[in-house]
Amino acid sequence: MPASPIRKLVPYAEEAKRKGRKVYHLNIGQPDIPTPEVALEAVRHTDLKVVEYSHSAGNESYRKGLANYYKGIGVDITHNDIIVTTGGSEAITIAFMSCLNPGDEVIIPEPFYANYNGFAVQTGVVVKPIVSSIKNDFALPDVSEFDKLITPKTKGIVICNPNNPTGYLYSKEELEKLATIVKKHDLYLFSDEVYREFCYDGHTHFSAMKLKGLENNVILMDSVSKRYSMCGVRIGALITRNKEVITTAMKFAQARLSPPSFGQIAAEAALNTPESYFKGVYDEYIKRRNFMVEALNKMEGVYCPKPKGAFYTVVKLPIDDSEKFARWLLEDFEYNNQTVMLAPATGFYSTPGLGKNEVRIAYVLKVEDLKKAMECLEVALKQYPGRVI
Amino acid sequence: MPASPIRKLVPYAEEAKRKGRKVYHLNIGQPDIPTPEVALEAVRHTDLKVVEYSHSAGNESYRKGLANYYKGIGVDITHNDIIVTTGGSEAITIAFMSCLNPGDEVIIPEPFYANYNGFAVQTGVVVKPIVSSIKNDFALPDVSEFDKLITPKTKGIVICNPNNPTGYLYSKEELEKLATIVKKHDLYLFSDEVYREFCYDGHTHFSAMKLKGLENNVILMDSVSKRYSMCGVRIGALITRNKEVITTAMKFAQARLSPPSFGQIAAEAALNTPESYFKGVYDEYIKRRNFMVEALNKMEGVYCPKPKGAFYTVVKLPIDDSEKFARWLLEDFEYNNQTVMLAPATGFYSTPGLGKNEVRIAYVLKVEDLKKAMECLEVALKQYPGRVI
Repeated sequence: MPASPIRKLVPYAEEAKRKGRKVYHLNIGQPDIPTPEVALEAVRHTDLKVVEYSHSAGNESYRKGLANYYKGIGVDITHNDIIVTTGGSEAITIAFMSCLNPGDEVIIPEPFYANYNGFAVQTGVVVKPIVSSIKNDFALPDVSEFDKLITPKTKGIVICNPNNPTGYLYSKEELEKLATIVKKHDLYLFSDEVYREFCYDGHTHFSAMKLKGLENNVILMDSVSKRYSMCGVRIGALITRNKEVITTAMKFAQARLSPPSFGQIAAEAALNTPESYFKGVYDEYIKRRNFMVEALNKMEGVYCPKPKGAFYTVVKLPIDDSEKFARWLLEDFEYNNQTVMLAPATGFYSTPGLGKNEVRIAYVLKVEDLKKAMECLEVALKQYPGRVI
Repeated sequence: MPASPIRKLVPYAEEAKRKGRKVYHLNIGQPDIPTPEVALEAVRHTDLKVVEYSHSAGNESYRKGLANYYKGIGVDITHNDIIVTTGGSEAITIAFMSCLNPGDEVIIPEPFYANYNGFAVQTGVVVKPIVSSIKNDFALPDVSEFDKLITPKTKGIVICNPNNPTGYLYSKEELEKLATIVKKHDLYLFSDEVYREFCYDGHTHFSAMKLKGLENNVILMDSVSKRYSMCGVRIGALITRNKEVITTAMKFAQARLSPPSFGQIAAEAALNTPESYFKGVYDEYIKRRNFMVEALNKMEGVYCPKPKGAFYTVVKLPIDDSEKFARWLLEDFEYNNQTVMLAPATGFYSTPGLGKNEVRIAYVLKVEDLKKAMECLEVALKQYPGRVI
């Protein structure tokens, strides 16, 4: 498995910090938003005597609570359609293992979440990328483009909505178009919706689980990591109405015994997170996004789409090579003893050569820090020897 | 992936309970021993504000503590040789994925931990069983037997020591014999030592990590689940001095982001579990084992080896088919409105037909409950229509 471009940068970031340099991390999706108090309190007040294995599909009380949460967003399922997983990561690997055989192909619009590659390698699945372009803010490619990629080995399409890394939010109409392809070729539609709660400007999220006639095709992959800012609890979920898939997925779930107990306690309690929490998070991200998009688009040669969801954006920069630039920022650059760490977009493309003039920026920092980071970036772009206009 | 014989029994156990029957669970390795208070307290007193991803290899403080724990048992490693995993289960899958390619073969003495099959299926690895026999209490088969199974595709040997399901504790001499085979064919030796602390009658555990000259061959797979009776925290570890394997394993670790945060807090604190705890656990298991072995061997036609480690034993019963018997116990039998759930040994053998007159018994119940369970079993063996002498 190849090392991702982001991870290759880690030693350079460490070295920069050793030199006493402040590094603004725009490269990772680790929000600084506090975890809901109700979740932390539940863990603090556990009266467990023995921390036992839970049910392999997750605690029934949590699954029932989750089913209720999904009903609240218009997805009518029961707790038997849910397998609680160790993070969204495990939801993806179990979904792939349960639905696909080694050699099977899945189509994924690129740029895409880099770890999909890792999960595909693990499960022997072949990723067929379909390019979405910054020119139309990374909208879903036309259905005819998907059609061109279909082979007898194509078994599924993977989408991430809202999208990591682009921040693009697929509309109901786009999903319905995608549904026609899924139906036509009887594919699985793997829908990663871990950023569901992060939708902006009045846009609402439409879950793939609501697509009509795809009850046996859609596999929802979810996580509490971002929703409640508790990435470390490692709790996700695989959800599908396809009974055969659930039965197979349960075998993989049983082989690894159970998802984490403390994480499930936190996640179940988090279902009672007050609405005011989400309002506060929304306001904070809107502020950050608006500040960042404006700051970036003011820089010469830079284009940043205005993301409608998640907390990422893929930005076009006037540079020769995003990997070189990101490394140069850490190794050779400083502005008032500060620098920024970016994620080269090459790591999010499967097609070689793409993403060389793009980076992913996660706006997971407070506006005052984002401001300093943007100042750094502006100065850096002027000084960078590989600047290309 | 086929369903295991134990899991096929679950609906029958549920039905028996619905009928108001008391079911003694001798089928699972879920101890009733309390989790050390020091671990629970650490979780109760966390002052985390954001439950963030940890380092993909696990918190450095925990890995340093673990390295120290291993030094204490004579295994000299550093925290860089450790990747903290989501339970022992993930240690096994990451070990297989990092060392083996689909189609590669591993030799495993059978009966073996049934989930090895699941992990092998997931990773495309082919299991070649080598029969260990109840006739010599499941000792390590002769080295010449291993030699016969070696093919160009053989890449490793998997052992579980002390053994689940047999309770057999491999001696230093046996491991040194195994080492000759490992060295001769330059194999990996995957050593699952999650029951390390459970050794009885003055026998001590010898870790495969102490075998000389195998520094690049041995992959240790560990877990805190049994050591501290906290199966639900889902914290294990992959340990090896082989730098190449660690580098590859880290890529898989990074793809799944991080092991559970609360579990790591519990596991790190558990390193300070007082010696008195282990003494208490030891005394309890010795009592249970001695009672159970004696009770079983008194029954006509039953043979139970005296296990030197873990908390399982594989027992020979005068029955036609262990799967039928286990189901009959749940479906058709009761004694004073009680019955027992056993694990058919067929699930622990890879060779078809083996284990039909054997079951695994986990002595994870209090002696008073074990006593009732043994009474049930004795009556059942007399009544069972498939009794064979």
